Parts: sequence; C-alpha cells; structure tokens
Amino acid sequence: MLGLGLIGGSVLRAVTAAGRPVWGATTSTVDASEAVAAGYPVEQTVAGALRRAVDTDALVVLAAPLDAVGGLLATITELAPQCRLTDVVSVKAPVADMVRRHTPLVRYVGGHPMAGTAESGWAAGSEDLFRDAAWVVNTEDDGDAAVWRDVVRLALDCGAHVVPAGIEEHDAAVARVSHLPHVLAAVLAAVGADGGPLAMALAAGSFADGTRVAGTRPELVAAMCEGNRDALLPAVDEALGRLGAARGSLASTGALTATVRAGHTGRQALDASRAIELVEERVELTGATVPERLRELGRRGGRVIGLEEHAVVVRAPRDED
Amino acid sequence: MLGLGLIGGSVLRAVTAAGRPVWGATTSTVDASEAVAAGYPVEQTVAGALRRAVDTDALVVLAAPLDAVGGLLATITELAPQCRLTDVVSVKAPVADMVRRHTPLVRYVGGHPMAGTAESGWAAGSEDLFRDAAWVVNTEDDGDAAVWRDVVRLALDCGAHVVPAGIEEHDAAVARVSHLPHVLAAVLAAVGADGGPLAMALAAGSFADGTRVAGTRPELVAAMCEGNRDALLPAVDEALGRLGAARGSLASTGALTATVRAGHTGRQALDASRAIELVEERVELTGATVPERLRELGRRGGRVIGLEEHAVVVRAPRDED
Repeated sequence: MLGLGLIGGSVLRAVTAAGRPVWGATTSTVDASEAVAAGYPVEQTVAGALRRAVDTDALVVLAAPLDAVGGLLATITELAPQCRLTDVVSVKAPVADMVRRHTPLVRYVGGHPMAGTAESGWAAGSEDLFRDAAWVVNTEDDGDAAVWRDVVRLALDCGAHVVPAGIEEHDAAVARVSHLPHVLAAVLAAVGADGGPLAMALAAGSFADGTRVAGTRPELVAAMCEGNRDALLPAVDEALGRLGAARGSLASTGALTATVRAGHTGRQALDASRAIELVEERVELTGATVPERLRELGRRGGRVIGLEEHAVVVRAPRDED
Repeated sequence: MLGLGLIGGSVLRAVTAAGRPVWGATTSTVDASEAVAAGYPVEQTVAGALRRAVDTDALVVLAAPLDAVGGLLATITELAPQCRLTDVVSVKAPVADMVRRHTPLVRYVGGHPMAGTAESGWAAGSEDLFRDAAWVVNTEDDGDAAVWRDVVRLALDCGAHVVPAGIEEHDAAVARVSHLPHVLAAVLAAVGADGGPLAMALAAGSFADGTRVAGTRPELVAAMCEGNRDALLPAVDEALGRLGAARGSLASTGALTATVRAGHTGRQALDASRAIELVEERVELTGATVPERLRELGRRGGRVIGLEEHAVVVRAPRDED
C-alpha cells in the first residue's frame, strides 16, 4: 500500500483482517505514525516498501491522489519497473496514460473502490469501508490476466464486489453519477444563495439535498472533477442540452412535463437497479472473449463476487436476450 | 378551510388543537369522511362553509392546488364576495392575479406554509406539520392590515413562524430554492440514467441525494414548477449561465475552481442561515412604512414569532448597519 490515507489505510486494515500479508508506506508522517501505533506493518520509506514488493512479486497498490501518482510512478520506474500494479484513484484514463508513459514495463490493472467519506487521512478509515461496495476493476482486452485476478482478490478480501469495466466506460459512468452531481450541486447552491437570506430562510429539503455535496472541501471536488475532464465535458453538455430544452419549453408552451418525466424515469432506474434480483452464475475465464464478456456483465448491472481457479462467480440481472 | 388534503387537513387539526373555532369543507369525499370520522367539524358543502364564514366574518383559507383555485374563487364571488381570504398555494403572484380578476372585492392576503411531505390527502396530515416551519405571509404596501393579522395569527396558531415577504420576492425565492432544485434533479437523473445499468451500479451518495426529489410524482412537480413560470425562468437562466461558464472553463483551462468555490460559498450560506443567532425585537405596527419594514425583516432572515395589539415580536439576525 503506497499511501495510508482514508482509502489506503482502510485497505491495509481490511487485507490484514482477511489474513493476507500486506505492508504500507506513506510520505505522511501523521498517517504513518497513527498506523504504526494501531499495530499495522509500515515500512519506513516508499522505497523500502517497493523493494520488499519486488522481492516477493507482491501487488503494489497506489493509494494516492491523482496529483501524487506521477511522483510515485517515478519511484516505481526506478525501483520496481516490472511490478504488479493497481491503483484506487477515482479516474482511470489519466492514471493509465501516466503508467504507459512513465512505467511501460509495469503490469498494471486499474481499480476504483466506490466508497469514501467526507473525511480523509488514516484516522478516518476503517476495515469495513468497502463492505458491500462496488470496486471497479479495469477489464481491457490487452490487460494482464494474472494481475486482474490479484486486483479482484484484493477487492473481494476487502468485502467489496467487483464491477468489471473498461477504462473509458468507467470514466464516462462516474462523470455522470459522481462528477456531474458535484457540478450541478455547486450551480444550485450558488443560484440559491444569490437569493439572499430570504431564499435561505425558505429553503427546505429539496435545496438541502440538492446542495449537500457542495459542502465538500472545494479543492477536493475541483481536483476530482478536473481529473476526469475528458469524460465530464460530454456529461455537462448533456446536462446543458436538457436544461436548455427545459428552459425553452417553459418559456414557449409553459410545460415542464417532458423534463420532469425524464427525471422521474431516471430516478426509477436508480431505484430499480438497487431492487433488482440478481442471479448467481459462473463465468469461465477461458477464451479470447473473456474481457469483453466480463465488461458486458458490468454493463448490464452484474458483479463478480467470487474467484475460482478458472472461473469467477458472478451475480447479475437475468439476461433478457 | 376549503380543502382538507395534506395542508388544509393539517391546518384544521392545528387550529382545533389551538382552541380556536374552525370548520372545513372539501369536494373530496374521501378526505371529508376521514375528517368527520376523526371528529373534526366538516360542512356538507363548500357553499355551506362559505355562508357560515360570511355570517361570522371568518377568515376563509383556500387550501387547494393552483388548478382548483379558479373554481373556488368563482364560488366565493357568488357567495362571499367581500370575505377575508388567504391561501396556502406554493406560488403567490398567480393566485393574487386570479383573486384580482375573479373577486376584486375580497380582502385577500396570500400565505405559503413551507411544509409538506411526499404524501397527500387528509390521512397524510398532522397537527404538527407546521411546527417550527416558515409560513410566508404576503406583506404588500396596499395589503389589508386586519387580514394580515388574521393570517399571522393562523400561522402562529399552527406552530409556524411568519416570514413577511412581497408577492414577487416570495415567488423569486422559491423559484431558486424549491423549483430549480426539482428541475436540476430531473436533469441529473436523466443524464445519469442515460449511462445505463453500469452507471446506476456505480451511483453513490452524491447521485442519490441530487436526484431524490426526482422521485416525486411527476404531475405534482410539473404543476408546481409551471405555476411559478415567470419567476422560474430567470432562475433557470442563472443556472444555465453558471453551468455554461463551468463548461467553458473546463474545456479551455481545465479548471472548475470558480464553479466549485461559488457552490461551496452558497452551501455555507445555507448552513449559516440555520446556525445564526437570532435576537428578539419588537416592531411597532404604526406608520405607513410598516409593510416595507416587515419585508426588510424577511429579506435579512428575520421572522415574526408573536402578535400584539399594536406590534409584532420578531426574531432576526443582528442588523449589521
């Protein structure tokens, strides 16, 4: 574990609890001393942790913010240029690009655990942070199958289920459901507050809910959204298109029915995805189409919940085809 | 009380609990029979309730959806053309316009209790629905001072506090904090769901919170937003402007800092308005500037909490001037 903040620290705890060998390192002296005080194995330096990973061919996990990834990759290039590598950064294409540029020999499969809190740092973590959460594991046609298994095992050890997804489709999905919500919350909060104390005094649940994430530390939100720029732009454009259509309809015919109905249908899709019955299946990990079959599973709302020698156990909605 | 649904039924209960004489009528046989079964006084017909109001010069409360207001006003024109009248509809200019057109002799002061649930009908109501809620009372320069007192008394009897506001400024404020949130939630829900089951599987708290109100019955949301069209259009335009600026900045420099910071400041304004210390004052109800002084109180986040013969007791943030 390179990085022992909220995510890295929680992974270290969860993997330890699962009874698997793991060790961490971080440049944060606060996180390091708190982890040591809690009895977890922490190497003195990132270099030391990496050398130990090379000796045992261990999976290296980058658990750092996007802007710290480049520096860590430079160290990896120097000390562990062919290591097994994954990461937990919330955007995948920018990390994959950096890996390709900085450490082309590394065996890399990206990941993204969909869990977190408003807090940060070792102290905010827990071994249960990923329990029942989705953990996206990048599933590319040219991905390293052995490292893919390592990352799936890591996610399952943490209590998460695995959603297989390609790099681009992951970034497009989180642009819609993680980053656009922050942009729209910011817009709503600003327009609302421009109404002054009277508007704030009349604000009720709809405004409070719609602006909740605007209370998150602005530097974190801006960095997260900016890091997914290529995928966020088309999502913002879709929102602009829909909002502009609502505006036009309201101004011309006075009707908002189409906008409101589409929103209601969208919200029902979220509720349905959480209520849908999932059926257990096994997917054999043989043949050239494995990555595409796994991505297709993710696209229809399925997930990997178990790992066997030549197969994965999955849960998925019944295939309608 | 004309109308015994969620709001009207809750007012009937609360005023009864406050020990003041009140009676209701409704065209909904379900609401009427449930109210009677619960022991509340319900007239057989709206006409009967109105005749009784004329006999006692009682305050008539329109507790019906906007699209039912015209029909009730026609009955009032016929049977009680000079009655004291208020309403609880969530937009004020359209109701005031209808009152002016249909019943020009009526003594009308509009109101809007800021409370509700996703449910509707008598059965969903309670005598505590308005406890500690804001109840906007329209405070116009040419308003009827006696009826204004009636409506303030009604709101206080229901356990609410009164926010004095002009008709237009009320509609502008709720466009920002009640109606725009519904439009943006609909846009977000639609764009998110367009990402398919994969996006829904990765949706977490930010998407769930930002789309919660998109789960409300679409006919209710559309009618509510469309009813405030004149005030909602400029609020949507402000949102379009801010979202377009975010898009431009993200596409050109890659930065979302300005958008995110403005949103954070806006959300802090909401939190501050809920945490601010309010100081008790008395405002004398004498002189021609009373309405403007009361509106100014509302504009700086103040509220009326008590009614005396020639004054109101208010709570307000310290005046910085």
